[in-house]
Amino acid sequence: MARFFLEQEYLRSESVRITGEDAHHISRVLRLKIGDEIECAPGTGEIHVVRLTRVEGDLVEGIIVDSYLSSEESPIITRLYQGLAKGDKMDFTIQKAVELGISEIVPYTSRYTVVKLNQAQQKRRLQRWERIAREAAKQSKRARLPIVQPLVEFSGLLERLEIHRAAGELILIPYEHEKQVRLQDIECSQPKAVSVLIGPEGGFHPTEVAEVVERGAHVITLGPRILRTETAGLVALSLVGYRWGDLA
Amino acid sequence: MARFFLEQEYLRSESVRITGEDAHHISRVLRLKIGDEIECAPGTGEIHVVRLTRVEGDLVEGIIVDSYLSSEESPIITRLYQGLAKGDKMDFTIQKAVELGISEIVPYTSRYTVVKLNQAQQKRRLQRWERIAREAAKQSKRARLPIVQPLVEFSGLLERLEIHRAAGELILIPYEHEKQVRLQDIECSQPKAVSVLIGPEGGFHPTEVAEVVERGAHVITLGPRILRTETAGLVALSLVGYRWGDLA
Repeated sequence: MARFFLEQEYLRSESVRITGEDAHHISRVLRLKIGDEIECAPGTGEIHVVRLTRVEGDLVEGIIVDSYLSSEESPIITRLYQGLAKGDKMDFTIQKAVELGISEIVPYTSRYTVVKLNQAQQKRRLQRWERIAREAAKQSKRARLPIVQPLVEFSGLLERLEIHRAAGELILIPYEHEKQVRLQDIECSQPKAVSVLIGPEGGFHPTEVAEVVERGAHVITLGPRILRTETAGLVALSLVGYRWGDLA
Repeated sequence: MARFFLEQEYLRSESVRITGEDAHHISRVLRLKIGDEIECAPGTGEIHVVRLTRVEGDLVEGIIVDSYLSSEESPIITRLYQGLAKGDKMDFTIQKAVELGISEIVPYTSRYTVVKLNQAQQKRRLQRWERIAREAAKQSKRARLPIVQPLVEFSGLLERLEIHRAAGELILIPYEHEKQVRLQDIECSQPKAVSVLIGPEGGFHPTEVAEVVERGAHVITLGPRILRTETAGLVALSLVGYRWGDLA
């Protein structure tokens, strides 16, 4: 059954009203008819099964016939801080992170960031990333819509880490010069949230690693081979999901 | 230091002779000079540090100044059986699997395979995949060159699984309809080899899963969210590397 993320305002007590792109998708692309059912997610973790009562080009209405709490969301909050990367690598990283159950993605710039984006480019890029996150969330049957934050500078990242540390959250930074400490060496039985910091293509400057460690981050290795930036995030999130989440 | 994979015949007892593309790369792209050093891997796991003694357009020679056994290779053999997927998904899967330390990649067709390739296309595609594997192995500093096998049919895959089972190897098949058994439920302290079977975009037919299970495969879940075919392989290999390999 196709799943759609709805703004809360489209959901009334027992009925649903869908307009715009999603309505177009239902009526023209999926060619659903009155009586067909879809799943609607307000993004809260709840899923409503909706039977369609009206299907026109840009207007779809239905009634809620069933509601349940989704089991597709990870028991832990995960955040990916991803150094801004070139070309379609960010698109890829966002799509895969959403499939893996990410809660929040925060792109950032740092000393070795190669890509430069002006304000207008940043805005367009964010819209693109949000669209990719939404599509991936639909396809992978997420119940919550992950948040993609606007691009922050490294100083802004450090401020966020302060907040995470104060909240007792776990912060991990895979670093190619770390050869000893592995994820399984981190002593933490069940964190409520895990933030993973992945460097840009140029990697981290040692000072940046030190600044992050000062905010309580744990430096780890992801093995002896050199991973590309878009691979590193995905591997780290897989391992976090295996150890503490719902991946295995 | 840049790393190159060499055919064994280019390596003499104390000297190295490189021609063709690699020589071009060394002389024209990296613009290395006499006295500069490179790493040469005959693909056996050994690494030779080579000091260049002659650098011309298509001919590079050098002497071996150091040799050591690489620590960049996983302690376990891993094989990825990947259902033939559309467009650049195969390229992506091969690149990432090599970064993760894969030993062998076997593309296969099955009942729900969407892509059809004739003999000529298969040949061209294999050459492309081998090039991608080689590049990824260089970039991620692998010491062994992973093997990409020619496309096999599902019956050929089953024959290979028989051999793996006879050799006491572990076979895993992530399947979206499996909800219970996770990787951590598989009882196996240290397998010498792990094969991971990933379905094509269309997924596995239940009969195919049964046939694979008859050959000793363990059906597992990779969590409650639906993963794309190119994500599933990467996640499964990450988890295998975490539990038994050198990823963490």
